Amino acid sequence: MKFSIERADLVKAVSQAQSVVERRNTIPILANVLIEAAPDGVSFRATDLDTEIVDRATAQVERPGATTVSAGMLNDIARKLPDGALVQLSLDAASGRLSVQAGRSNFSLATLPREDFPVMSSSEYSANFSAPAAVLRRLFDKSKFAISNEETRYYLNGVYMHVAQAEDGPSLRCVATDGHRLARIDAPLPAGAEDMPGVIVPRKTVAELRKLLDDDEAEIAVSVSETKVRFATPTITLTSKVIDGTFPDYSRVIPSGNTRKLEVDAGDFAKAVDRVATVSSERSRAVKLSLDEDRLVLSVNAPDAGAADEELPVAYADEPLEIGFNAKYLHEIASQIERENAVFLFNGSGDAALIREGGDTSAVYVVMPMRV
Amino acid sequence: MKFSIERADLVKAVSQAQSVVERRNTIPILANVLIEAAPDGVSFRATDLDTEIVDRATAQVERPGATTVSAGMLNDIARKLPDGALVQLSLDAASGRLSVQAGRSNFSLATLPREDFPVMSSSEYSANFSAPAAVLRRLFDKSKFAISNEETRYYLNGVYMHVAQAEDGPSLRCVATDGHRLARIDAPLPAGAEDMPGVIVPRKTVAELRKLLDDDEAEIAVSVSETKVRFATPTITLTSKVIDGTFPDYSRVIPSGNTRKLEVDAGDFAKAVDRVATVSSERSRAVKLSLDEDRLVLSVNAPDAGAADEELPVAYADEPLEIGFNAKYLHEIASQIERENAVFLFNGSGDAALIREGGDTSAVYVVMPMRV
Repeated sequence: MKFSIERADLVKAVSQAQSVVERRNTIPILANVLIEAAPDGVSFRATDLDTEIVDRATAQVERPGATTVSAGMLNDIARKLPDGALVQLSLDAASGRLSVQAGRSNFSLATLPREDFPVMSSSEYSANFSAPAAVLRRLFDKSKFAISNEETRYYLNGVYMHVAQAEDGPSLRCVATDGHRLARIDAPLPAGAEDMPGVIVPRKTVAELRKLLDDDEAEIAVSVSETKVRFATPTITLTSKVIDGTFPDYSRVIPSGNTRKLEVDAGDFAKAVDRVATVSSERSRAVKLSLDEDRLVLSVNAPDAGAADEELPVAYADEPLEIGFNAKYLHEIASQIERENAVFLFNGSGDAALIREGGDTSAVYVVMPMRV
Repeated sequence: MKFSIERADLVKAVSQAQSVVERRNTIPILANVLIEAAPDGVSFRATDLDTEIVDRATAQVERPGATTVSAGMLNDIARKLPDGALVQLSLDAASGRLSVQAGRSNFSLATLPREDFPVMSSSEYSANFSAPAAVLRRLFDKSKFAISNEETRYYLNGVYMHVAQAEDGPSLRCVATDGHRLARIDAPLPAGAEDMPGVIVPRKTVAELRKLLDDDEAEIAVSVSETKVRFATPTITLTSKVIDGTFPDYSRVIPSGNTRKLEVDAGDFAKAVDRVATVSSERSRAVKLSLDEDRLVLSVNAPDAGAADEELPVAYADEPLEIGFNAKYLHEIASQIERENAVFLFNGSGDAALIREGGDTSAVYVVMPMRV
């Protein structure tokens, strides 16, 4: 194997691949990246056995071939080489070392045989469709904050992507919840996704996927089976196992009878929640909302540290209500809202609240109350 | 106590004071900042019993007085208030709470009595002088990297500031060493510093001092006694105990007979060291310098991971030499050098090397060799 590649292309491909590699590996080859050089270009492949990423880059390939080297080390070397350098990588068959050369710098890296590298099998996918990067970004960005960290509830450790019937027709829906709050985000169902099985996309895959979605114009090819999901741009393919579990019936959690309606500027609300929460201790970050005609007072009372309150001008025409929430949850949800106004729908002070962006029903949040 | 202060002034003063406060305190009041309002302005004082900082700010003082509140909480509140807000702080004598108000935000914070706050005694200083911020910044910035982290060698856990006789006359000198490398930085002796006792300024104080030195034009008032050191700008006074120990006789460590002279571009050298060190394992970061006529090869050989070398054009006219150093130490020293060329003076491969910036003898570095 022998090829030359621009330093910038090498950095981009290797750094993206490298981020899938786990820091600590009991299986040494999982710390490596599989480099495959073919006449039409080079690919860099990394895996943690659950998630696999393949990055393709253009290169002048002199001799096709393949090998594996430490992903972290190759990434460090590429980053440290001077801007604009042309990097030559070649495998020395005799020593089994990969030579990396650029300018006056020479590196000779230990390799492990390509045959030992676990390549994820290509399964049959039962649905294939494509979606704009901006659509997928919205679905995952607005839901992922609610993913649960509790390992015992492993079926909540991801975003549930599935087909659902929304108010305005069939939709591609992402839902995440940790039992205390929930996010449900809809997008129009792309052609070809109709028979997609519902899958729970693991947290790590959601994070890796995000790096493929920066380009608004890009179309992402999505493939889904019962056990795997794949997202692909023309240069990057991210394949992941999905979480083997059943996502709970979230629709029971979404209140439908809440009628007390509060409208508030989302940005002002988020900042005010953050401010009053300053005085609360880390553990019980409860903030109380006291609602009266066109008036909202946020308050926190932490007996040891102090108290804080802030009044906000709002639209509210219902009977007075006092209700408490975890400040962090409220702040995270309010931060998701891009339109000016957040709409809260309450029932009683012991009932979950529903939050929307204005009249838009394609993004809905639920948060459980806290006793204050 | 009651006064109004611009949010920006409050943020600046409290954040600077707050940084002296230790995260974990067994003595509750050490987590607090002492606020003192006098007719001519307000001061914020924080301490960890070894270091004390007082920040003065302009404010409209309606009622003089003093109290103490959580430094971290007041800092968080100030930061979160909107830009341009006027903040009113007032102590409610009845409840013992400090009220903080800005716009529609109200905070009521628990206080502890000002009488319990440990104020550092003003000792008699045996030397008082003033030095430009840029001079002190150079003295400490260029030496602090060599401060030892070993707690058992507590007398090396700071920068030794003292009066010394340099080649071109009496100087204010800062020295730091951890036994593996040493930095010795000189500046012309300011008037009034002649009788200054040598003091070891603790690492934390060096870090806090740095924040006072950003303004090139500022003159810093320095006061020194056998047990304390004080640095003051018109608005900030930093007082610190010095390390109670004897700094070793560092002059024995500085080689005087090294004659093999290498000149190399400091930036290129630092980058090349960083690059070749990529393949070395964390522990034994040894890089080998192989010198021949006008030629330097840096190389690293890590049997498990691989090898790396890089050649640099240099000026060297002596006999060939091979010598090894810790890559991190070499890189840190080369990074200190602001002029284009670093000058290395070697003796044998088992002897310490001396490093200078060109012909300048006011900044001298020493690094011990490593077997490679």
